[in-house]
Amino acid sequence: MTLPIDPAQNLASLIRCPSVTPAEGGALTALAGMLQPLGFTIDRPTFSDIDTPDVENLYARLSGNGPHLMFAGHTDVVPVGDEAAWTHPPFSAETSDGFMYGRGAVDMKGGIACFVAAIARHVAANGPLKGSVSLLITGDEEGPAINGTVRLLEWAAARGESWDASIVGEPTNPDTLGDMIKIGRRGSVSGDISVYGRQGHVAYPHLADNPVRGLMTLVDALLDPVFDEGSADFQPSNLEITTFDVGNRATNVIPARATATFNIRFNDLWTVETVKAEIEARLARAASDKRLRKGASSSINYELAWRGNPSHVFLTGDEKLINTLGNSIESITGRKPGLSTSGGTSDARFIKDYCPVVEFGLVGKTMHMVDERVALADLETLTQIYQRFLEDWFR
Amino acid sequence: MTLPIDPAQNLASLIRCPSVTPAEGGALTALAGMLQPLGFTIDRPTFSDIDTPDVENLYARLSGNGPHLMFAGHTDVVPVGDEAAWTHPPFSAETSDGFMYGRGAVDMKGGIACFVAAIARHVAANGPLKGSVSLLITGDEEGPAINGTVRLLEWAAARGESWDASIVGEPTNPDTLGDMIKIGRRGSVSGDISVYGRQGHVAYPHLADNPVRGLMTLVDALLDPVFDEGSADFQPSNLEITTFDVGNRATNVIPARATATFNIRFNDLWTVETVKAEIEARLARAASDKRLRKGASSSINYELAWRGNPSHVFLTGDEKLINTLGNSIESITGRKPGLSTSGGTSDARFIKDYCPVVEFGLVGKTMHMVDERVALADLETLTQIYQRFLEDWFR
Ligand SMILES: [Zn+2]
Ligand SMILES: [Zn+2]
Repeated sequence: MTLPIDPAQNLASLIRCPSVTPAEGGALTALAGMLQPLGFTIDRPTFSDIDTPDVENLYARLSGNGPHLMFAGHTDVVPVGDEAAWTHPPFSAETSDGFMYGRGAVDMKGGIACFVAAIARHVAANGPLKGSVSLLITGDEEGPAINGTVRLLEWAAARGESWDASIVGEPTNPDTLGDMIKIGRRGSVSGDISVYGRQGHVAYPHLADNPVRGLMTLVDALLDPVFDEGSADFQPSNLEITTFDVGNRATNVIPARATATFNIRFNDLWTVETVKAEIEARLARAASDKRLRKGASSSINYELAWRGNPSHVFLTGDEKLINTLGNSIESITGRKPGLSTSGGTSDARFIKDYCPVVEFGLVGKTMHMVDERVALADLETLTQIYQRFLEDWFR
Repeated sequence: MTLPIDPAQNLASLIRCPSVTPAEGGALTALAGMLQPLGFTIDRPTFSDIDTPDVENLYARLSGNGPHLMFAGHTDVVPVGDEAAWTHPPFSAETSDGFMYGRGAVDMKGGIACFVAAIARHVAANGPLKGSVSLLITGDEEGPAINGTVRLLEWAAARGESWDASIVGEPTNPDTLGDMIKIGRRGSVSGDISVYGRQGHVAYPHLADNPVRGLMTLVDALLDPVFDEGSADFQPSNLEITTFDVGNRATNVIPARATATFNIRFNDLWTVETVKAEIEARLARAASDKRLRKGASSSINYELAWRGNPSHVFLTGDEKLINTLGNSIESITGRKPGLSTSGGTSDARFIKDYCPVVEFGLVGKTMHMVDERVALADLETLTQIYQRFLEDWFR
C-alpha cells in the first residue's frame, strides 16, 4: 500500500480527470483512492436542484481524539478556453522546466494534492492525528455553486458533523508562495434599476420624457459619494455599473426605458441589509431631488430589483487559526504572509457560518488562463506548510 | 373631359392606391390622370441607388408666362400598422360622419388632392395661369429619402428648371386648419460616442477601467449647459441621448466598452459645422478634465463618429410668399396662422437650396396613426385657400 505523499503525483492524477463543471470526470474517485489508504471514511453525496445539473461531492473524515479541522475545496475546473493555445494539453499533467501544466493546477487541484500529501506525511511520521481531519470537496465551485459547498455543509451538519476550524485551499498568493492568507471577504450585492420615461419624436422633446437622463441621475447618486474609505481590515467598498442599456436604434426617437445593473463589494462597515438600505435611500433621494439634471422630468419613475443570493461580508477572528497558519508559512518559506480580505467571493463565505475559516493555497497567477501551471517547487513547499500546520494546530 | 375640381374625389382615387414606401401602388399614375386634362407636361423619372429600392417620382409642369411656383409633396405613405384596428379599411377611402378615412388622408395625399383641385378650379374660372406651376411629387419621403426629392430637384434643375417659390403640402396644422405655416426648420445632426475602458472583475476595480463612468461624463457635457435659449424665429436647440448601451450580462464583470448615440435639433444660431465643432469641443474638454467623476480614469478614451446626412437649418425670408399664403388662409378661414419653425425635418430642407419654401397643408393630428382621416370640410377649405393663393400670388 503506497501512501499519497508526493503532491506532484497526486496532482497529476487529478489533472488527468477532465472535471470541467459540472462533470466529476473521475476526479473525486481519484481523490477517494488517495484517501482510502489513510483510513478516511468517505461519502460521495450527489445533490440535485431544479434548473441546475446534478453535482457529485465528497466528504471524507479521518477521526481522532481532539479538535476537528476541515480542509475545503473543489475538484471542478473552468473550461480550457482555446485548447490549441496551450503549450501542453490541459488534461495531461505534463511537466516541463520545473512546472506541471494543466487545468486546475493551481485552482485548485494543486491545493488538494498538497493537503493530501501533508496528511499522508504527517500520519507516516507522527502516527494517528490528535484530532479529526475532514476534506469537504465540491464539484460545483466554478459553476452555479448551488449543489456544492452550501448543500454539503448542510448535509454534513445534519449528520452531526461540526468543525473547529477550516482552511480553504484556493490559490491566495498573488505572486509568490507565502504572500497572502485571506482572513475574510467583502460582501456582494447586485441589483437592476429601470427608469421609465415616455417615448416620442426627438423633434418634440416636450411631449416625451427621456429615461436616459433619469437613469444617469440615479447612477450618479450610487457612484458619488463613495460608500466609505475602508476599514481596519478591509478595502473601501466599491460599486460598479456593470451595464447600462437602452437598445434604441432610431436616432429620431426618444426611448421609453433605460436599465442599468450595479454590483457593490462592501466591507465590514456594512451588512447586506444596511448597504441595500443605503442604496434605496440614495435612489429615492435622487429620484425626487429638485436639482435634477436639465431636461429630466421633475421626478424619476424607476424600479429597483435586487438580484438573488447576496454574499455577506465576514472577517475571521480566530487568532489560533490565523497565527498557526502564519507561523507555518513563515517557518517554511521565510516569508511573513499578509492578512488580506481583498478579491472576489469564495466558498469560505458559506463555511464561516459553521466555523472560523481562512484561505491559503498556491500562487493564483495562471488560474483560469491558458497554460495554467504550478511550480513543482511550490507543490513541495505548500505540502510542507500544510504539514507544519497540522503538527502545530493539533499540538 | 372632367376636370379634377373635387378634392374628395381626387383624394379617394389616391387613397385607393396602396403606395406604402417604396411602392408606387398606382398613386402617381392616378395623379398623372388628373393633371393630363389640365394640360400639364408630365415626367415620371425613376431613381436608383445601391442598397435602397428604386423609387418612382413625378414632375409635372403647366407652363405660362410669368413666375414659376412649385408645389411639392409625396404620394408614398407609412405602413398601416394594425390593420384590424382600423374602423374603415386603410385603402378604401370610405367616408363616415363627414370624414374620409385612409392611410395618407392627411399625410399627404390630401394636400395633393386639394392643390390639384385648386388649379383645376383656377383654370376653369380664370383661364390660363399668369405663370408656371409645377408639381414635384416623390414616392420616397417616408422611406430612406434617397431616391426622392433630392434626386428629383437635381434632375429637374439639370433640365433647366428653376422656381421662384415653393409650397410643401405637408400637414402643418396641429389642431385646426389655419393654425400654422412652417417657414423654416431646425437642423439635425446625429453621432455615436464609444468609450473604451478595460474589462475586469468587479472585485478588482483598480485593474479595470469602467467605461460607463467615462461615457456618462461625456454625455453630461453634451446635456449641460444647454446650447442656447432659442432665437427670434426658433425654439432652443435640443440634444437628446437616443440610446446608451453596454450589453454586459455578467454582474461580476466590469465591461470594456460603452456607446451612446445623440441627436441634436439646432436652430439658426448654429450651422451643421458650428454645432459639430461645439460638440467636439465639449467632448474633448470633458475627456481630459481633471474634475472627473470619481473612479473614472484620468482621461477618457473615446471615439466620436458622425452619422451621415445632417440637415441644415433654414428660415425662409420671402415676404411675398409668406404674406400671400397667410392672407389667403386668413381670408378663407378667418384665422391668422402662426409662423413656425418647430417640429421635425421635411423635404423643404432640400427645396430651400433652389427657391424660397414654406409648408402648409391639412391638420396633422391623425398622421401615421390607425384611422388616419381628414374632415371633408377641411378638404374644401384647403382647396379654397390654395386657389386664393394661386390667384393672389400670380397677380
Ligand atoms: Zn477555485
Ligand atoms: Zn408627409
